[in-house]
Amino acid sequence: MLTLSLIGIGCGDPEQLTLAAIRAINAADLVLIPRKGPVKSDLADLRRLICAQALTNSRTRVAEFDLPIRDTAQEGYRKGVDEWHDAVAVSWSRAIAAHLGDCGRVALLIWGDPSLYDSSLRIARKLDPLPMIEVVPGITSIQALCAAHSLPLNDIGEPFLVTTGRRLREGGWPSGTDTVVVMLDGGAAFQWLDPNGLHIWWGAYLGMPRQITMSGALAEVGPGIVATRQEARARHGWIMDSYILKRVS
Amino acid sequence: MLTLSLIGIGCGDPEQLTLAAIRAINAADLVLIPRKGPVKSDLADLRRLICAQALTNSRTRVAEFDLPIRDTAQEGYRKGVDEWHDAVAVSWSRAIAAHLGDCGRVALLIWGDPSLYDSSLRIARKLDPLPMIEVVPGITSIQALCAAHSLPLNDIGEPFLVTTGRRLREGGWPSGTDTVVVMLDGGAAFQWLDPNGLHIWWGAYLGMPRQITMSGALAEVGPGIVATRQEARARHGWIMDSYILKRVS
Ligand SMILES: C[S@@+](CC[C@H](N)C(=O)[O-])C[C@H]1O[C@@H](n2cnc3c(N)ncnc32)[C@H](O)[C@@H]1O
Ligand SMILES: C[S@@+](CC[C@H](N)C(=O)[O-])C[C@H]1O[C@@H](n2cnc3c(N)ncnc32)[C@H](O)[C@@H]1O
Repeated sequence: MLTLSLIGIGCGDPEQLTLAAIRAINAADLVLIPRKGPVKSDLADLRRLICAQALTNSRTRVAEFDLPIRDTAQEGYRKGVDEWHDAVAVSWSRAIAAHLGDCGRVALLIWGDPSLYDSSLRIARKLDPLPMIEVVPGITSIQALCAAHSLPLNDIGEPFLVTTGRRLREGGWPSGTDTVVVMLDGGAAFQWLDPNGLHIWWGAYLGMPRQITMSGALAEVGPGIVATRQEARARHGWIMDSYILKRVS
Repeated sequence: MLTLSLIGIGCGDPEQLTLAAIRAINAADLVLIPRKGPVKSDLADLRRLICAQALTNSRTRVAEFDLPIRDTAQEGYRKGVDEWHDAVAVSWSRAIAAHLGDCGRVALLIWGDPSLYDSSLRIARKLDPLPMIEVVPGITSIQALCAAHSLPLNDIGEPFLVTTGRRLREGGWPSGTDTVVVMLDGGAAFQWLDPNGLHIWWGAYLGMPRQITMSGALAEVGPGIVATRQEARARHGWIMDSYILKRVS
């Protein structure tokens, strides 16, 4: 029997690791660390650091493996994603077979929480043979963003929507809520909203030493966020950012 | 100078504590534990346990204090909440003055994450004198629910809405999303939805030894969840549950 632990490790600060995550890492026979190419090597380094700090069990092996390159030229977003997940599942299966065989506990360290905008649960269900799947929750970027701003996410008794930059850009302000969390935004989609009456709480590289946060009336701080974002991305070679928008009266 | 740390402690499993939370607890001069009356004494016990397990700094003092009773007879939900927060702020200020004075670090252990349906950030802003506020994120019940079901919260690239039982009951299925997370539901509000095409993932006492989870097509499992919920609530004297609904095609 094979067990696969998907272990949330938080989204940048190694101290976001939970005791359950540390226990799960040390309960594993094998921790697999994917290599994702040069752009994301900062994140791979952080994963290695977190793993090295948490790991005290000398019998747990750590192995790196290459992920397939995503074919972004492919027609159809969903279809492309699905085929890419198939390819990733094959690379996981191979790495597991090579380093462990068909019996034992494998762990994968997942950025933030495995249930939030992450494909590992979907990929895990495509593995052959199908392992037992175990999820250890981790601190998400939404929580790191709220904490950095000391911001209550919801208004009292009110809902909030979590969505992507693409959705916000294509669909505008969603109906039925005054609070929107935006993730996976490659291009500061808030620029295409009417900023009147909107406030923004923005954060990039949350939890890391290079963390940047900005907040205020969208009309006032929006252009500065766009500029800061471009500059930081150019300087570091990559950026991960998220933000909360609220309609204020 | 006074610093107030609002420390997320997860929502039931003491191992959900993060390293940052443990560090913040031990950095405090004073940890305040509210007493909330007999119904919630299980949760107060859990807070005490978590605190006792995490605390290694012998100079950190732990003090309990009584919270005011909420006047639920009061007209106007929002107004009642606001006056209750004022009263809680007074009780915090008194406890801080009595046990620490006006200089040092006070910590409060917050269920789940301080930014999610929790009033402590709002109450903290009413303290006199106003302290520096620091937030340490914690695992939320949403993440514990997803982990218990090995469920990806969002569909690929799709949004989700987080709302309350009251909102769901009064407003029906919200527009613009196929995934809804429901919290703060005192009465299984999913009963008032047309169950056709809906799936539910439900969890009560998540992370605790008495955790219960159920899932399936809402039409099939809904009545069983209502019955299980009533029975568990009667047996334990209280219940905390949340669920995710998805429109499936
Ligand atoms: C593929 S999703 C993964 C989310 C992750 N599972 C979580 O729980 O936060 C990546 C997106 O998360 C957000 N994100 C992740 N880490 C972040 C960080 N340290 N700072 C700001 N945003 C972050 C960004 O919106 C990014 O586009
Ligand atoms: C006042 S809110 C606090 C939420 C908390 N701050 C968090 O991050 O989860 C209380 C609601 O959270 C949910 N909840 C909290 N702990 C839970 C648990 N252990 N199991 C199931 N639901 C829980 C329930 O919906 C409950 O009504």
